[in-house]
Amino acid sequence: MVAGQGTHLLGEWYGCDFSAIALNDAESLRATCLDATRTAGLEIVGDAFHQFQPQGVTGTVLLAESHLAIHTWPEAGFVTVDVYVCNYLEDNTHKAMALYGALIGHFQPAQENFAKVLRGRSHTDGLRGGVPRLLRSN
Amino acid sequence: MVAGQGTHLLGEWYGCDFSAIALNDAESLRATCLDATRTAGLEIVGDAFHQFQPQGVTGTVLLAESHLAIHTWPEAGFVTVDVYVCNYLEDNTHKAMALYGALIGHFQPAQENFAKVLRGRSHTDGLRGGVPRLLRSN
Repeated sequence: MVAGQGTHLLGEWYGCDFSAIALNDAESLRATCLDATRTAGLEIVGDAFHQFQPQGVTGTVLLAESHLAIHTWPEAGFVTVDVYVCNYLEDNTHKAMALYGALIGHFQPAQENFAKVLRGRSHTDGLRGGVPRLLRSN
Repeated sequence: MVAGQGTHLLGEWYGCDFSAIALNDAESLRATCLDATRTAGLEIVGDAFHQFQPQGVTGTVLLAESHLAIHTWPEAGFVTVDVYVCNYLEDNTHKAMALYGALIGHFQPAQENFAKVLRGRSHTDGLRGGVPRLLRSN
């Protein structure tokens, strides 16, 4: 492991049922995210959530391991989620997957786009779907 | 434009010079990020920054358009940056690029990994480097 290596999960969730639980409210969604983060074994070092009007929430949880970010568009039944964990001291990928899985369980999307990006290492090394990425040198 | 469409810039910066300016300090880095965000024409709705000991900062700026996230490892000269903007009312990609460019100007990395991911639309539509992504249906 080196400082720069990490796992970034990107999700786009369609057809989420916002009527099922209190996901429209920033404070409720914050509590849900913080609880899921702790349960996944990740360390919270800060957070910020914002309530849009008439609807929609955006929020991030700062982790010792990097961050969780979530954005909701209830009017479209749409949510995007990012879970990014560095693997500085240990491989935290399983914790990231646990957090991602807990959140998707709350939103119950009808369809999901998912990508796993390995940050800070060879871009052809182990990416699901063999995702290439652009490498530039200054 | 639909609610789910957005542009996500992912950067990994190597060989950053942390001695050049006050990038080791959470409050200074926060001020730098907030200023760069405003200058890029993006709307700040919240933020959270955390100072690690003995070094390193992690922070996010919540945007009306989605978020900025930054993580620094001064001991390794390494920084990761995410700039994610939705394109709900207009295409904010140029603003995201402006913010990304301003921040990279502060850190002056010797090498950069960069990827642009289009969130919430066809994964083969316009991705730099032709990045494919995994599509799953529940």
